[in-house]
Amino acid sequence: MPVIITIDDVADPRIEAYRDIRERDLVGRQGCFVAEGRVVIEKVVSSADFRLNSVLVAAHRLESLADVLGRLDVDTPVFAASQAVVDAIAGFALHRGLLAIGRRADAPSAEALLGGLPARADILVLSGIANHDNMGGIFRNAAAFGVGAVILDSDCCDPLYRKAIRVSVGATLLVPFAQVDRGTDILDLLDCHGFATVALSPRGERELQHMAVADRNAVLFGAEGPGLSPELMGRAHTVRLSMAGGFDSLNVATTSGIVLHHLFAASR
Amino acid sequence: MPVIITIDDVADPRIEAYRDIRERDLVGRQGCFVAEGRVVIEKVVSSADFRLNSVLVAAHRLESLADVLGRLDVDTPVFAASQAVVDAIAGFALHRGLLAIGRRADAPSAEALLGGLPARADILVLSGIANHDNMGGIFRNAAAFGVGAVILDSDCCDPLYRKAIRVSVGATLLVPFAQVDRGTDILDLLDCHGFATVALSPRGERELQHMAVADRNAVLFGAEGPGLSPELMGRAHTVRLSMAGGFDSLNVATTSGIVLHHLFAASR
Repeated sequence: MPVIITIDDVADPRIEAYRDIRERDLVGRQGCFVAEGRVVIEKVVSSADFRLNSVLVAAHRLESLADVLGRLDVDTPVFAASQAVVDAIAGFALHRGLLAIGRRADAPSAEALLGGLPARADILVLSGIANHDNMGGIFRNAAAFGVGAVILDSDCCDPLYRKAIRVSVGATLLVPFAQVDRGTDILDLLDCHGFATVALSPRGERELQHMAVADRNAVLFGAEGPGLSPELMGRAHTVRLSMAGGFDSLNVATTSGIVLHHLFAASR
Repeated sequence: MPVIITIDDVADPRIEAYRDIRERDLVGRQGCFVAEGRVVIEKVVSSADFRLNSVLVAAHRLESLADVLGRLDVDTPVFAASQAVVDAIAGFALHRGLLAIGRRADAPSAEALLGGLPARADILVLSGIANHDNMGGIFRNAAAFGVGAVILDSDCCDPLYRKAIRVSVGATLLVPFAQVDRGTDILDLLDCHGFATVALSPRGERELQHMAVADRNAVLFGAEGPGLSPELMGRAHTVRLSMAGGFDSLNVATTSGIVLHHLFAASR
């Protein structure tokens, strides 16, 4: 069990990283992220890919969270403060009573990630997914249906943004991901690793239920609205979902769930 | 084109219904609701089931919204104010520049709704869906996959809450719905109208792809977490989604999308 450091003063410099948590996006600053609540922090603790810098807990929750705290490295600082002080530090009412600052131990390249996957694998490729809710929702589905990796283009938001982690129920900490540099030829990369690539689009050439399922499948999703670039669409097989007509509007995370369930069910 | 009424004073009593819009839940007060943005308001205008009490628009948007405003009844008051006044009235920065207060012309009973459906129909039955995002997401899927009606139990939130309408992209204004009183025997009602009922549950007796598809299908969803009551589960056929294991966590709106896509594709 780590030593508990009591914080009485909102201005205490030791909890600087937690201050006004909604305003900051720690991501990109030394690769840190903010984790919130028991479920998410348990996933950080269980993962070899992430480390915790410190934890901030509402003092009255210390007992009920003892099992999680007991699994931290002994040298991880655990700051405890009254709920009022925690709320004042974070800048909002932190009902979960538990925050942590984490970091990614190692950000693998897309190349390394794809190279390490088994012969049978489904992966997602995301282009321009900038909405944290959608990013979190997609990762939650990816975890549920056993996706081996998620490849992000340079226009995607960070899956380790606090809200994306929360919406994903911690799945962004479970499913390996890599972001490629602008200009990377993703389709070429997928082809090199033996992936059959399909792009989802309302204008897709065939319906999902007629999609060929290979051993290694890569499914491409673009943002709602703009969708995938004509260049990507022209180079990949394209798939659409059959809809009732008149209201052809699906959320991209929901669409990923439908496609991943289909792939998962088809491969069993 | 209705007459435009210019509002210069944030305190003008004529725009009382728009004041501090986030704080109020107009639903339940004479059946009114708040609609936001062009897409949603176009759906209200197109629907025989809803009426607009009035519209509030940022003056600099009058020209770009002329087509929508031109479709309003001539006696619908259109209030126009500067963006600053609109924001001050609403209580937040209203980027879409367009709000309306609407009402439901007629709230049909579940009995009437089910009785009016065609011989071939899929419906949703929601139990305890209290989250507006999930409600909106479920309706968006219902519209995309041609669901004939949504039946809500008394523990569900109102689909006409502003956020639910927005998340649904207006689908809560398109898909007919009815809320039943506490104590209504929903399964009995479905049975009377010839619906084959399946309940979704992680502990379902068969996987979705092995679900029998009837002419009239009713699919039951409960809230994430508590799920459906043992009583409902015991009386319905139950279906589960096959998942990878280790992270059996799906959002209920996403789950509805997967099931509705399956039903829609299976029936064509």
